[in-house]
Parts: sequence; C-alpha cells; structure tokens
Amino acid sequence: MTYCCALRLQDGLVFISDTRTNAGVDHISVFRKLYTFGVEGERFIAIQTSGNLATTQAVIGHLKNHLELSQEPNLYSVNTMFEAAELVGHTLKKVLADMAPDTQEQSNYYCSLLVGGQIKGAEMQLYNIYPQGNFICATKDTPYFQIGESKYGKPILDRALRYDMPLDEAVKCSLISFDSTLRSNVSVGLPLDALVYTRDSLHIPVGKRIDEEDPYFSSISKQWSDTLRKGLQELAKPTDDYLV
Amino acid sequence: MTYCCALRLQDGLVFISDTRTNAGVDHISVFRKLYTFGVEGERFIAIQTSGNLATTQAVIGHLKNHLELSQEPNLYSVNTMFEAAELVGHTLKKVLADMAPDTQEQSNYYCSLLVGGQIKGAEMQLYNIYPQGNFICATKDTPYFQIGESKYGKPILDRALRYDMPLDEAVKCSLISFDSTLRSNVSVGLPLDALVYTRDSLHIPVGKRIDEEDPYFSSISKQWSDTLRKGLQELAKPTDDYLV
Repeated sequence: MTYCCALRLQDGLVFISDTRTNAGVDHISVFRKLYTFGVEGERFIAIQTSGNLATTQAVIGHLKNHLELSQEPNLYSVNTMFEAAELVGHTLKKVLADMAPDTQEQSNYYCSLLVGGQIKGAEMQLYNIYPQGNFICATKDTPYFQIGESKYGKPILDRALRYDMPLDEAVKCSLISFDSTLRSNVSVGLPLDALVYTRDSLHIPVGKRIDEEDPYFSSISKQWSDTLRKGLQELAKPTDDYLV
Repeated sequence: MTYCCALRLQDGLVFISDTRTNAGVDHISVFRKLYTFGVEGERFIAIQTSGNLATTQAVIGHLKNHLELSQEPNLYSVNTMFEAAELVGHTLKKVLADMAPDTQEQSNYYCSLLVGGQIKGAEMQLYNIYPQGNFICATKDTPYFQIGESKYGKPILDRALRYDMPLDEAVKCSLISFDSTLRSNVSVGLPLDALVYTRDSLHIPVGKRIDEEDPYFSSISKQWSDTLRKGLQELAKPTDDYLV
C-alpha cells in the first residue's frame, strides 16, 4: 500500500509520501511516490502517486517524455495548475485506455494522484486526481487530501490542522499523521519523502528524505507516544455508572 | 457502518459499540450492537456485531430462540467460552446457508461478531468470529479485537493499551479510540454502548449508554483535543533541512 498526504495552506504547500510498495507480503520494495517538476522562479509542480505502480510510473513516464521531447501540452507549457491537473488526468485516462479498452477492466489498474504547485502569475493549487482521471481542488474548508492508507492518520489531521497554521506546525502535524499510520499498518513504511513549498516563492524545494535514523522524526515520534500516554493518564477516571 | 471494540485484559473485559446503521446516506438508524446473556453468579456472555444487520439479528434471534425454547446447545448450556464461540460460529454458518447455498453469494450477507465472557469454573475469554464462522482468541500479546470501521481508532490502542492496564484506564483508552473514529467517519455514530466485566466476578454488568449529552464522554473528548493540540505545539520545530 501507500500513504500520501498533501496540504494547501495559507502560507504554502506540504507534501509527505511513504515509499513502500508491495505485491504480496514477500514482494516489498522501496519506490519514490513524490515527484517534482519545475523551473526555478517560474513554476513548481509536485505529484504524489498511490495505487497500481505500473500505472503511476506510466503516467509519470509520459509526463517526463513529453518534456524531454518538447511535445505539447506538457507540464512546462501549461499556464495554470488547473491545466496541470487536466494534463495529469488526461494522461492517466490514456494510460488506462491503453491497458484495457473496457472501463470495467480498467479498475484493475487504477491509481490516484495528488498534484500541487504554483505557476508564475497564477494561484497556488492542490488537486486530487481520481482513478477515472477527473479531479477536485483543495479549499480553505478542506485544506488537505490523502491517498492510499488514509484512515489511521486522519484523526490527527481532522483535529489539529488549520488553514492558517504556519508551515512548520503543519509539517509536525503531518509527520504525526504518518507516525500513527506507520505504527498501525505494516504496508506503509519508511523512508518518507517530505517537501515544503512557500507560497509565491516559485522556489523548487530540495525536499527531505526521512529514514529510520532521522533524529528529528525519531524524537517527535517518541515524544508523541509520551504525550498520548500522559494525556490518557491525565483524563479523569470514568464515572461509576461506566463500571457497573 | 459500525465500530465495535473489545478488550480482554488481566483484570477483566471491556466492550464498546456504536449504534449507527446505514443503508445509503438517507437511511440511517440506531440499532444496538452489543448484546448480553448470562445468569448472575454463573455466567456472563457479551456479543458485539458488525456487518449485514439482517444476518446479525438472525444470529442473535436464533441464539435467543434456543434459550427461550430450551433447545440444546444454547448459551446457558455451553461449558466454556470456547463452546460459546463455536455455537455462535455454527449459528452464523446456518444463517448464511439459509440465505444462500452458494458460498460465493453468501459474502453479500457477511457479518463479524465478537464474543467474550466467562462461565463458572472456566477461563474468561474473548473471540473474534469471522464472517465464515471460524474464529480466533485474544491473547496477552493481542489483547483487543475491533470489527467494523477499525482503522481510525487503531493508533491509540496500538500505542497505549497494555494487558496489565487497570480497567478504568482501559475504558478511557477505548473511549478515545471511539472519539477519534466518530470525528473522522460519519458512518460511526453516538450513542455508544459500553460494558465492563471484572474477571471472576460472574456479575452481569448493567452497562452504560453514552449519548451526546453524556458529561464524562463530552469532557474527555474536549480535554483530548486540547491534549493533542498542546502536544503538537510542544514538539520541537522541524529542523531546517525539512523546509528547504
């Protein structure tokens, strides 16, 4: 499986992905699921992938191939993030149609993608591309999207995430969402890839790979366990009517 | 959907179930999913249900009918919790066979059950009955089972639950697991039914119905939100390499 999460906040974008893929329990590999595209000072586009690995690699492959051969439309010629999302959605539809003309059969090859970024002169946006190639856009009310094994890490986002939260706070919140998922589901695994984009910077972030020895992630993971245990202890005992 | 959780700990058993059922978003009802059977001082058996409501009601209906008509075997004639789990599993298999002779078709009517309790002279046990009618037993290593929408509430159990935890602490931990689920998934809903059994007491607990106005549940739910928000704030800021 996979867990990817992306936030579109007042101050910028945050993307975090795990890297574990599995085809059965004895075929586990590490594959990057966070891809970046862009021209420094002009555009930044990040794509996260979940689902059938051959499909997601084909989508990314076609997008890169178009750039290499300067075929239109491509991620460096689209004018807005809406056009970028359309391009990714169309590319996905073509890959699926190639695999199986029958739409019923296409569901065997489904994948989901998150596409976020900013192009000079246009709005910073984040899109969730559905397996069928259509998509929705993040808003102030719903500032985050998840794909893959999303349920374990959803409660902390639902409780703590705010649109006007500073980016470094949002990174903490997302990392805790990943930590909860990693502990409860063995199909999501380290290392993680994290990327933070500052609104209107048009700077392509280097990003950070977080492995098991990462001192920051290890320390907040441990501290969070302590917070939860201590927090539980500090809750009042159940009233007597709970125990009879 | 449904969320039910049961713990078998050193000091006793804890059962919590939600009550929401839905067939589509415009057909939402409240149905109890936690049933108790027993003879004070002699045996206590609790059953929690998830899945096809007609199937779970048929299983409970047959178990009660056997008791009313004193037909053997029944929940008051079995000698151990193992035999109780076998009886529930067999009853489920008969209900499914009645619905559909073809095992493939039976999957349309699947349900899961948790069966826990204690019978005088025998061990306190907790069983997870699979949709096919076979079952597994809780152990010290894996002291809890969940059925239904289990993922949202799993991280807190994985982190905080211990076999040797006092029962009142375990109730807090389970209620927080429910609170996380209720906030992230609209198919799980209040009121909740909670039941705590003390090992070797052979006392049939009254149990507690927890609705939206329950002062204890409301207060720990609010306090837990504060704990998480404060805990996140107290985590160190991400190191610079996370943000470039």
